[in-house]
Amino acid sequence: MDFYKFSINYYNRHHPFIEEFCRIKPFKMKYLKQSALLIASAVFLMSCFDQNKKNQAEPSVKPETKSKKHWPNGAQLVISVSMQFETGGQPEGAESPFSGTPLPKGQPDLPAESWYRYGANEGIYRMLDLWKKYDIKVTSHVVGTAAEKYPDVAKAIAAGGHEIAAHGIAWDNQWNKNYADELRFVKDGVDVVEKITGQKAVGYNCNWLRRSPNTLKVLQELGFLYHIDDLSRDEPFITKVTGKNFVVMPYTLRNNDIVNIEGKHWSPDQFLNQLKFEFDRLYEEGSSKRRMMSISFHDRIGGTPAMVHAMEEFIKYTKEKQGVVFMRKDDIAKMVLNDPETPVDNSEEKYNN
Amino acid sequence: MDFYKFSINYYNRHHPFIEEFCRIKPFKMKYLKQSALLIASAVFLMSCFDQNKKNQAEPSVKPETKSKKHWPNGAQLVISVSMQFETGGQPEGAESPFSGTPLPKGQPDLPAESWYRYGANEGIYRMLDLWKKYDIKVTSHVVGTAAEKYPDVAKAIAAGGHEIAAHGIAWDNQWNKNYADELRFVKDGVDVVEKITGQKAVGYNCNWLRRSPNTLKVLQELGFLYHIDDLSRDEPFITKVTGKNFVVMPYTLRNNDIVNIEGKHWSPDQFLNQLKFEFDRLYEEGSSKRRMMSISFHDRIGGTPAMVHAMEEFIKYTKEKQGVVFMRKDDIAKMVLNDPETPVDNSEEKYNN
Amino acid sequence: MDFYKFSINYYNRHHPFIEEFCRIKPFKMKYLKQSALLIASAVFLMSCFDQNKKNQAEPSVKPETKSKKHWPNGAQLVISVSMQFETGGQPEGAESPFSGTPLPKGQPDLPAESWYRYGANEGIYRMLDLWKKYDIKVTSHVVGTAAEKYPDVAKAIAAGGHEIAAHGIAWDNQWNKNYADELRFVKDGVDVVEKITGQKAVGYNCNWLRRSPNTLKVLQELGFLYHIDDLSRDEPFITKVTGKNFVVMPYTLRNNDIVNIEGKHWSPDQFLNQLKFEFDRLYEEGSSKRRMMSISFHDRIGGTPAMVHAMEEFIKYTKEKQGVVFMRKDDIAKMVLNDPETPVDNSEEKYNN
Amino acid sequence: MDFYKFSINYYNRHHPFIEEFCRIKPFKMKYLKQSALLIASAVFLMSCFDQNKKNQAEPSVKPETKSKKHWPNGAQLVISVSMQFETGGQPEGAESPFSGTPLPKGQPDLPAESWYRYGANEGIYRMLDLWKKYDIKVTSHVVGTAAEKYPDVAKAIAAGGHEIAAHGIAWDNQWNKNYADELRFVKDGVDVVEKITGQKAVGYNCNWLRRSPNTLKVLQELGFLYHIDDLSRDEPFITKVTGKNFVVMPYTLRNNDIVNIEGKHWSPDQFLNQLKFEFDRLYEEGSSKRRMMSISFHDRIGGTPAMVHAMEEFIKYTKEKQGVVFMRKDDIAKMVLNDPETPVDNSEEKYNN
Repeated sequence: MDFYKFSINYYNRHHPFIEEFCRIKPFKMKYLKQSALLIASAVFLMSCFDQNKKNQAEPSVKPETKSKKHWPNGAQLVISVSMQFETGGQPEGAESPFSGTPLPKGQPDLPAESWYRYGANEGIYRMLDLWKKYDIKVTSHVVGTAAEKYPDVAKAIAAGGHEIAAHGIAWDNQWNKNYADELRFVKDGVDVVEKITGQKAVGYNCNWLRRSPNTLKVLQELGFLYHIDDLSRDEPFITKVTGKNFVVMPYTLRNNDIVNIEGKHWSPDQFLNQLKFEFDRLYEEGSSKRRMMSISFHDRIGGTPAMVHAMEEFIKYTKEKQGVVFMRKDDIAKMVLNDPETPVDNSEEKYNN
Repeated sequence: MDFYKFSINYYNRHHPFIEEFCRIKPFKMKYLKQSALLIASAVFLMSCFDQNKKNQAEPSVKPETKSKKHWPNGAQLVISVSMQFETGGQPEGAESPFSGTPLPKGQPDLPAESWYRYGANEGIYRMLDLWKKYDIKVTSHVVGTAAEKYPDVAKAIAAGGHEIAAHGIAWDNQWNKNYADELRFVKDGVDVVEKITGQKAVGYNCNWLRRSPNTLKVLQELGFLYHIDDLSRDEPFITKVTGKNFVVMPYTLRNNDIVNIEGKHWSPDQFLNQLKFEFDRLYEEGSSKRRMMSISFHDRIGGTPAMVHAMEEFIKYTKEKQGVVFMRKDDIAKMVLNDPETPVDNSEEKYNN
Repeated sequence: MDFYKFSINYYNRHHPFIEEFCRIKPFKMKYLKQSALLIASAVFLMSCFDQNKKNQAEPSVKPETKSKKHWPNGAQLVISVSMQFETGGQPEGAESPFSGTPLPKGQPDLPAESWYRYGANEGIYRMLDLWKKYDIKVTSHVVGTAAEKYPDVAKAIAAGGHEIAAHGIAWDNQWNKNYADELRFVKDGVDVVEKITGQKAVGYNCNWLRRSPNTLKVLQELGFLYHIDDLSRDEPFITKVTGKNFVVMPYTLRNNDIVNIEGKHWSPDQFLNQLKFEFDRLYEEGSSKRRMMSISFHDRIGGTPAMVHAMEEFIKYTKEKQGVVFMRKDDIAKMVLNDPETPVDNSEEKYNN
Repeated sequence: MDFYKFSINYYNRHHPFIEEFCRIKPFKMKYLKQSALLIASAVFLMSCFDQNKKNQAEPSVKPETKSKKHWPNGAQLVISVSMQFETGGQPEGAESPFSGTPLPKGQPDLPAESWYRYGANEGIYRMLDLWKKYDIKVTSHVVGTAAEKYPDVAKAIAAGGHEIAAHGIAWDNQWNKNYADELRFVKDGVDVVEKITGQKAVGYNCNWLRRSPNTLKVLQELGFLYHIDDLSRDEPFITKVTGKNFVVMPYTLRNNDIVNIEGKHWSPDQFLNQLKFEFDRLYEEGSSKRRMMSISFHDRIGGTPAMVHAMEEFIKYTKEKQGVVFMRKDDIAKMVLNDPETPVDNSEEKYNN
């Protein structure tokens, strides 16, 4: 239960006692004044104790604030949110609460379609309100056909100071395309979205993360700076693509709304606990190495009231610590691209030459 | 843990201390009286602090109570509960805890049938008790054959001042019917239930929300005021059907008992958390725009003791805020039908001309 | 978090403050004694307030203790636990954590077999320890072949004062047997278990609750008093079988360990919450009507440490209320068989004549 | 919520009150000093009360510390963690978040491969940091091909003082191999890992626990001391293999990360609750019999930040009790191998002669 509720309950509990007590015995100002001072000083002392405790409970904090920082910008932990805008781009029969029992081909699945529209009507705008309230800039992965269907939504994202990243021209498999088709698929998405938002994407996210062996070469050829479809680290790293540096941003399925809320059937409080547990560990590790936390929210899922509430509770939770920074992935990529501390990992070398 | 449990525990914890202490040292009335006053005034001061905190913790509240209201009735948030009465109308092999391993056709699945009877024996009556305790009026979607099998249950719902809405003559697919068959399917349900309850339905809910392209035209022809099988918004909206205004009430699968408790295997405390998280966000948004929260409970699932307890805890939770109103959907529909602030959305235009 | 943990934490938090404070300033006995009295009387007053609160928070309690009781024994709520003893009786490929990927027929699934043995080695004995600790008598549904394989376990159950009920001679479908085969199947189970435990079963539980249309007639012919394979009510009821009264005990799948822990993948704390939510509602209803709560634990699942801990926490939770009684189902059946307040329900009449 | 968060919140709540109060009325040192003493002594007394409560709340503790111990080393509960190192050894299409929708044979599943790399890049090292912080030695089950692919990881495990146990030369079925092939399969794994780590395995864990009828004889022939693929007890036991004693360590699927987090879709807080519930019961039982708690963490799953945080919270939780010891399984096996109190169980006799 959050602390606000606790304090309300505290008040509700004590309110009747006070009245009750007043009936028993009239207040004497002399006592009231005296005890007022006692309480005040008591609270004052307690708060000092708690302050001490605060530091004891987390010995790491003090050292950390002194310790060497592992991000060029001095952050102890960098958090980056991905906001997928896909609604309107989904194919017939795309995953939805109804796709478990599909209708015959050609038969419109009206409630499923309305479920997707939610992302454009409510989801993205609700998330934009939250990012604005806390002055957080996120990276939005925009499907080309989604932007074409809902240009105002795409423009609102860009207008909010958020990164417009690419997510393909359509909601479609990319792993099975040949080089030429894949290049076209990616480039068309970038062009369409740039025309609408004025932003040219430098970051990429594949449909269901499933890259082809050519994807990184395609992205390199198209001038991309980074991709996010790799789960192997909790920090960005460099991989060589046709001999040049390419940034790989960590993707964290365990912090992904669609995987957990739709796929694992979690309740929003479970999602919040996952984020808090993840944060507690990564923040602590941030005092001794470079750590990044990655979270993914999709328009129609992360954009629901309960999930946005969960995210707001998480944001408040991170504010209790120093050195936590929310960033766009393009800014992170630029920051680490030529940083000597950035690890180099060529595990997929055989595909990228 | 709720606060009542906390206070019990608090008592249990301190009880022994007191006795123990008394053994150590007899009370001196002088001290007791003095400290009684100290405590009383302390509690008094603390409660003032908490009162202040209450407002600080939720800066939105004060402004909101001043702010412009977005519902014609001045509510900050309208909550509407749908109570599905379907028991007795289910076909052979309908979803149940046993349908995962179906018996051969024609073989009666006795425990499954008894599971359904629970909805009529216990579920609906338990929910009616809860609505009555808090003077809440809900919308009940009644399957025609369920009302025929359990007329007393249908009558009890109507007698409780609740809305009798239509849910088809039988528990059957509607999306695959032609116009004439669908009209008959809907009309028969309305007529059967009206004969039993004396109420003519003006609101509609399709089996599994799955409308045909003709459904709204059928409903318009039959004089319906609204339907609920749309997930695209968190507020009611107007859509044009054969040129006339038709109200679309938001359906929220994420607040639906059958989807979460049976489908996602949630425990009742998870369901309660979902409702609270959802409420917290929608209530806050209600200060700047029109917001509606929709909850669905089915006779045999939402009507179990644990789920009714969860709902009661949620109702108590909403009482902590001002401007929260529980309403029947027909009353909401009448309130917004001709209200200029009600959004118009013709996304399904191609089907509704 | 339970309160014990809270108090430990409380101590851990304050311990350092004290030492710290002592370093700052030596204690003066005069002050210490004075404040000791203040605290003592403070705690004393607080506890009184909490006591008042306790009653306020739950206005129902007082009235209830005065109100008419709906069970012949004056209980407000009767709880009955079913303890299934099936281990050793399972067929090849029976449900287990491994049955999702079955081995070829004839290939022994050694970890699955060891998982079942757990029920006889640890599960039943652990539950027996718990029932004994709280002086609770339960109903144990014993599969004949399980008792044959583990006679000492069956004897230990009987020796604990628990009811030995029937569960078939083997772990096998019953719904597909003809009358003669079904009678033999049931009778063999009763005889085998009676020979081992000295108790003749009067209560029955079918494999997966799936009765045949003949089951109740078979049970009536064999002199059974009741069966539990019906989910339609939260209290026992009478149904006519070949013209004579037969008791139907409510089975509650939502309080069943195998359904929730193995089937719904719940964690033990979710199971505990389900029981508490269920209890809170049924207890309250118990003041105005007859209510029964039914819980099912299986040897290898409910008998694990975490689940027995959850059950113990639940038992402690029920102790906070008056008028809660744990009973064997045979005792309940005898109590209600000829009680005029017991409802009569002949929904399955067509099968039972 | 953990207590650290509580104290932070406490501070946050009271901080404003103090400032507010200071604005109302300047402090008088006389009062401050007096009340400082009152609070100090109050806290002192409360902590004494809590100390008493601590013991009352858990009457078992005191007796237990006196009671006879059931482990040769006097522990009340022995906990052993298994850390599976398998990454790099997985076959194409091995279980991953992506294996539900497999790609055509031969098509590299790049995100799935990156998910596995996480175990070697982050997972094992993160767990090693945790074990080191609390000076816990674990048993690591190392797949031969995983050690060959990531020798530095295998060496780091050994360098940390942890047990290197065998898990086969490859990630492959073992239950379907004939005696000669199985012996080769096991021996190759032992040899490969010994060459890299310098440790010769004496403990064995089969792929998915699925032993063949020959496995124990194979292990006996190769000089193994114990295996862990048995779920039948909460303590180690002896079984005769070709006439000689062989130790069977309990495996507990309910405390296994892959089963719960990936298989049951639990959130990390659910996993933590499972461990706490399990611990509470086993610890209590440890006062009257020998009890062991077994936990399994896999490189890519248990090694995620949220799960390592959950494990750290659990470790802290166990520190609140006396007599809890974390041990390597080889040390446990040596301790019980010839201990008369160790139970003997020949349930699988027919396979082991």
